[in-house]
Formats: sequence, C-alpha cells, structure tokens
Amino acid sequence: MSELLTGIAELTTHDGPTPAESTRLTDAAVVVEDGRVAWLGPASTAPAADVRTDLGGRAVLPGWVDCHTHLVFAGDRAAEFAARLDGRPYAAGGIATTVEATRAASDEELRAAAARLRAEALAGGTTTLETKTGYGLDVHAEVRLARIGREVADSVTFLGAHLVPPGVDRRAYLDLVVGPMLDAVRPLVDAIDVFCETGAFTVDEAREVLLAGRAAGLRLRVHGGQLGESGGVALAAELGAASVDHVNHVSAADVDALAGARVTAVLLPAADLSTREPLAPARRLADAGVPLAIATNCNPGSSFTTSMAFCVATAVLQQRLSVAEALWAATRGGAAVLGVDDRGAIRVGGPADLHVLDAPSAAHLAYRPGVPLTHRVLQGARG
Amino acid sequence: MSELLTGIAELTTHDGPTPAESTRLTDAAVVVEDGRVAWLGPASTAPAADVRTDLGGRAVLPGWVDCHTHLVFAGDRAAEFAARLDGRPYAAGGIATTVEATRAASDEELRAAAARLRAEALAGGTTTLETKTGYGLDVHAEVRLARIGREVADSVTFLGAHLVPPGVDRRAYLDLVVGPMLDAVRPLVDAIDVFCETGAFTVDEAREVLLAGRAAGLRLRVHGGQLGESGGVALAAELGAASVDHVNHVSAADVDALAGARVTAVLLPAADLSTREPLAPARRLADAGVPLAIATNCNPGSSFTTSMAFCVATAVLQQRLSVAEALWAATRGGAAVLGVDDRGAIRVGGPADLHVLDAPSAAHLAYRPGVPLTHRVLQGARG
Ligand SMILES: [Zn+2]
Ligand SMILES: [Zn+2]
Repeated sequence: MSELLTGIAELTTHDGPTPAESTRLTDAAVVVEDGRVAWLGPASTAPAADVRTDLGGRAVLPGWVDCHTHLVFAGDRAAEFAARLDGRPYAAGGIATTVEATRAASDEELRAAAARLRAEALAGGTTTLETKTGYGLDVHAEVRLARIGREVADSVTFLGAHLVPPGVDRRAYLDLVVGPMLDAVRPLVDAIDVFCETGAFTVDEAREVLLAGRAAGLRLRVHGGQLGESGGVALAAELGAASVDHVNHVSAADVDALAGARVTAVLLPAADLSTREPLAPARRLADAGVPLAIATNCNPGSSFTTSMAFCVATAVLQQRLSVAEALWAATRGGAAVLGVDDRGAIRVGGPADLHVLDAPSAAHLAYRPGVPLTHRVLQGARG
Repeated sequence: MSELLTGIAELTTHDGPTPAESTRLTDAAVVVEDGRVAWLGPASTAPAADVRTDLGGRAVLPGWVDCHTHLVFAGDRAAEFAARLDGRPYAAGGIATTVEATRAASDEELRAAAARLRAEALAGGTTTLETKTGYGLDVHAEVRLARIGREVADSVTFLGAHLVPPGVDRRAYLDLVVGPMLDAVRPLVDAIDVFCETGAFTVDEAREVLLAGRAAGLRLRVHGGQLGESGGVALAAELGAASVDHVNHVSAADVDALAGARVTAVLLPAADLSTREPLAPARRLADAGVPLAIATNCNPGSSFTTSMAFCVATAVLQQRLSVAEALWAATRGGAAVLGVDDRGAIRVGGPADLHVLDAPSAAHLAYRPGVPLTHRVLQGARG
C-alpha cells in the first residue's frame, strides 16, 4: 500500500553534504510505500497513491536520531535532582545508585521501563535511538543490559568503563573490561565508550579501553570534557573516534584537533542544564568546522529527558546554532556518529522516518519552545 | 455528579501563605463535585463518590495561571524570529507588523486564532489565562481586541500604551489612550498596562497612563526593565502596581523598592530566551522577598509559546528557583497579579482547576524538561 502525503508546507530532506547545501522544499509531497520513500517533490507533480493524506500546511523533517542515551536502568533519582538544584546536600546519589537499582531489577522490569522511554521518544519524533550499557559493571550485568538494549534501541554502545565499581580494584576492573567483559558483550554492541574524566578514567586508561574496542572491531566514542579539560577530547581526536560527547570544556587546541580529525562533537544541552555545567560552545565548534550532533543523554541522573525538540530549541536559543544547523545535528549528525547513513534524511529509497510537525516550518521548534509540536511520526523500514 | 480522584502520589495544594508553608500531601485523594473541590485529604480516609478514578501514582497540582500573554493577534513572525537568532538583518518586523496584520484580520479570524492558542494552553495545564490589547492602537481596534480577549481569556489588560503608532503624534496618542480609548475599553478590561522602555514610553508618560487607569478603577501593571534600567520598575513600586513584568534589568534600589511595596515581579523566561536578554534575576528577587510570578508572554514576536511547563523548567534549571518556588510563582503568583484569589490553589470550595501529571512528583517538570507531562486537565467552576 502506498500513501501520498501532500500539503507539506516545508520539507527538510537533508540530501546534501551540509545543512547549507541541503534541500528545503516548499509546497511538497512525499509518497511512502512499504516503509520507504518512493517519491518526493513539488506537490503539483505528485503521482497517485492508494491513500492520500493532506497534511494541511505542516512541516515535515527526518525523524530525530538520538545518538546518546542511557536508556536501560532502574530507579528514580528525582529527589537527588531536586536536592542538587536547590543546593541541598543529598547523601546517596550518583551513578552507583543506578547501578545498584539496575542490578536488583528483573529483566522484565528493565525491558518495560526502557520500552516506555523508547515509546515516549518515538512519540516525540525520535525514529532512531542509541543506548548504552554501563549500569551493570560486571560481566553478567553488562551483557544483560546489552541484550535488553538491542531489543529497545537501534544501536548499542558498550560502556563498561563508566566508573570503577565501589570496592573493586582499579587495575583488575580495567582488565575485566578490556578482556572478558568486552568479549562477552561484543556480539551485542556496535561501539565502545569510556567516561574519561577526573573521578572516572584517566586518558591512559581510556586509551587502553578504546584500543581494545577498536581491536574488537567496534566504533569508538568518548564521554569527554564534561567537567573540565581532562584530555578526553584530545584523545577522541588522536584515535579518530566517531564522537566525543559533552564537550562543555574544550581548549582551542581541542577544537582544532576535532576539526582536523573530523570527530563529531555531540552536544547534550539538557544534561548541561540539569547539571548546571556551561552549555557546550556549539557556535565556536561549528565555526571551526567540527561536525556536530545533538542528543538527549537520557538517563536518570543528569538528564532525564527524551525530548530532542527541547535539545534543538536550546541549541538554537542558547547555543546559537541556526535552525538549519540544529536540525542537521539532531538527525544527520547523529546518524553519522552511529554509522547509519540511511537515517536522518528523507531520500527516495531510504526509510520513511518522517516527523510531521503541527507547524508550517521547522523553525517553530525554536520559535515555540515547550509546545508539543509533533503531529505524526512515521518509522520506516529497516535493513 | 461527584468524582473521587485517588492514587495521587503527590498533591500540591498551595493552601498556605508561602511555598514553604504550603501543604504537599502524599498518597492523597480529591473529590470534585460541580466543578469544585468538595474534599481532599489522605486517600485512606476518602469518602465515596459517584465515579472513582485511580490516577495510578501521578502528581496533581493546581492548573497554571498564565498572567501575561498577548493572545489576540494575526500574522506569523517565524521568519523574523529565525533571522534575529541567526543574526541576519530583517527589514520588516516588530510590534507594528503585528498591529498591521491584526487590524486587517476579521473578528472571526482573530477569535479562531486566539481560541486555538487558548486550547493549546489548556491542554498544557493552563486553567486561567490573561490577555492584553495593544495590537490595535486606535479606539475601534483596541475595543475589538478587548472584546475578543474577554471571550477567550479570564482576564483582560488594556495595553493601548504598547507603542505610539507610526505616523501618529505622540502627545495626541497619549491623550487618546488616557481619554476616549480608556473610556471605550473600560467596561471590558480588568487592568491597565504600559510598555515603559526606551523606544516606547517614558516614565512620566507611563505614570500618566497608569494614574488614568487607577482613576478608572483598573489594576496597574507595567512592562519594565526588559531592555535596560529604564525606570519602569521603580515606577511600579512607586504606584504599588499589581506587577512589573520582564525585570531583566533591575538595580539594587529597584529590588528593594519592589520588596518594600510588595509588587510582584513577573518572570517571562521564554521571552528572555527568544530575545537573548539575560534571564531575569529570579533568585536575587526571591531572596530579597519580592513576590514572583511566572508567565509565558505568549506573543508572535518575542515569545511564541503557551508552555508554562517550559517556563517553570527554565526558572528552576537556569534561574535557580526551587521547584516549590517555581510552581508557586506559576500558579498562586499569577493569581495574585490578576487578583483572582480562588485560583492557583486546590482548596475545599474552590474551583477544581487540577493539573494531573504523567509523573509521580511535580519536580519532574524540571527533571524531565521538554517531555509533555500533562496527563489530564480539569477546569473547574467559575464565579
Ligand atoms: Zn552519557
Ligand atoms: Zn508582554
């Protein structure tokens, strides 16, 4: 069955190599058949189809590609969040709290909670989503998270190197991560990631983890520059990682290195706001030619949101990206990080991942912050 | 017919004189009858009712009171918005653009557009909403806006002194505003407002407008401190106005004066972000004892959102209000500005303006920014 979507006031296709060189059609139409884009172009030249839907002057853009989440977990950290923002002390808290709750939860509970968040993300326009391990921190628990991650997400990243579990010897844990744990999760994951930060892993430790991942054929990612200039950003450039995520704190040399190595900087504005870190210097990175992605970092501690629309609005209103740059980063940018080149664009033959807005242009995502603008989401064919 | 709402994980009643002295019940229930709260208390002691609805562990708070919008207008300024944020020049634009489009629109068009926004606001939990005139700027057009405003909003403010219309003599326009225009709109409005800012009206002009409004029995409001320390804030304190709105720029003396005169400062965080003004110093104002309200300033130029949830999240994440302070400001604070003391609280005998969240606590409004959390909205009896 084919469906002709007409009445598209603005169609953002992302068919070019950059935001500026990409097509934005007005008064457009799209034909979807078997979950794929069969045709797109001016409404006046649209072919017939089995079903015809008039979108009544709405904007259509590619579904969001959320390339950074921690979706599989148990437990609620709302009280810790409120205490942090009020400046009140809070005894428990941190990643270890979530590790404990996650280990204690059943498969069924973890799957149901992650599926709820996945559904919430889809309802907000996210058609491709990554998740990570990292709340298990032993071989059995990490494999379990990778397995459930595969069920709910499009791409899974191994983050055994999230932190050294309390009471475990540092060197012994690293040996576990790059040895038996990596071997065990390998068939279930697409990338390896490491939290390279004061209090987590040093640059040398992070390099060891990433090189082991590369030897195992995984894409490389780094949590870097979140709390300070800790060397994680430079490491991502040195190794030509797919991405470095957070980048709140970057030196001029870091920016040059990322641009030179074409490493994508993943902006996580909701996390920046929730932790009151300075917003990542998106304008500076973009001006230097660093490829950008925007993601939610959805997790119960530092960024409990699935809303890519909120992240895009923040990137435009506060991080000074243009609307076109932010849309690109939240779709094509994420697809590049995940290595899924058929996502984040609307192209004939590609999956019909379409996000229809209750607005005549995608600029309304920033023009109308907080207003739920998702009218309809189509998630297209896979594989 | 009576309805018992049970399964309320957190009930914010706002029954005390301050956020800190107000009740927050856990495991609560509410009985609604004829649009009023007939009973509230611990779920274990709830009386029977005709219908019983289990909210399944959700949070309930009073409906938002949005005390500052400009809802009745025609025209879209998305292109101007995008140009401003990209730093590109844009020939047309500004309030005068909206005045022109609004004058050209029919009653029917204005009513339909405002009703759409009102419905969108209600769907997001706003049960009480103010609007203003100010896109008419002649007697006939201002009366028309006040009349349509009364149809769609709970409270209407006369803002003939929005700006001097292009080509009109300044003194003649002021005479019109404080004379025939005020007389004509008087039966339709509750308050008078003036845009006291460089480029709009001087302090002396604003004082003249407000005193005329006071003589006509209207509540006083001021748009002040938006673009600089222009004297509007001090004027609001001098006249004991109900509110001064924007307050991005305030001196130490302004803060003391507002606190002393108990004038509410209305925070408009979405407008601050859309215009890239510094966010109003909410923490400083709260610490000095200035009463606060939070509103959307919904208008097509500087803040095209109806989302009180977005404004509350911004006030907590970026303006450093506690969740309790922000909730209060967005409900009781707005009610105080509008002089509608039965709104913004959940009290036996009061209107059942209830906002049910898809979350176990209202803290999730800041903990989960951008996620549409409104589960159900009840708008209670009026009068
Ligand atoms: Zn992360
Ligand atoms: Zn205003």
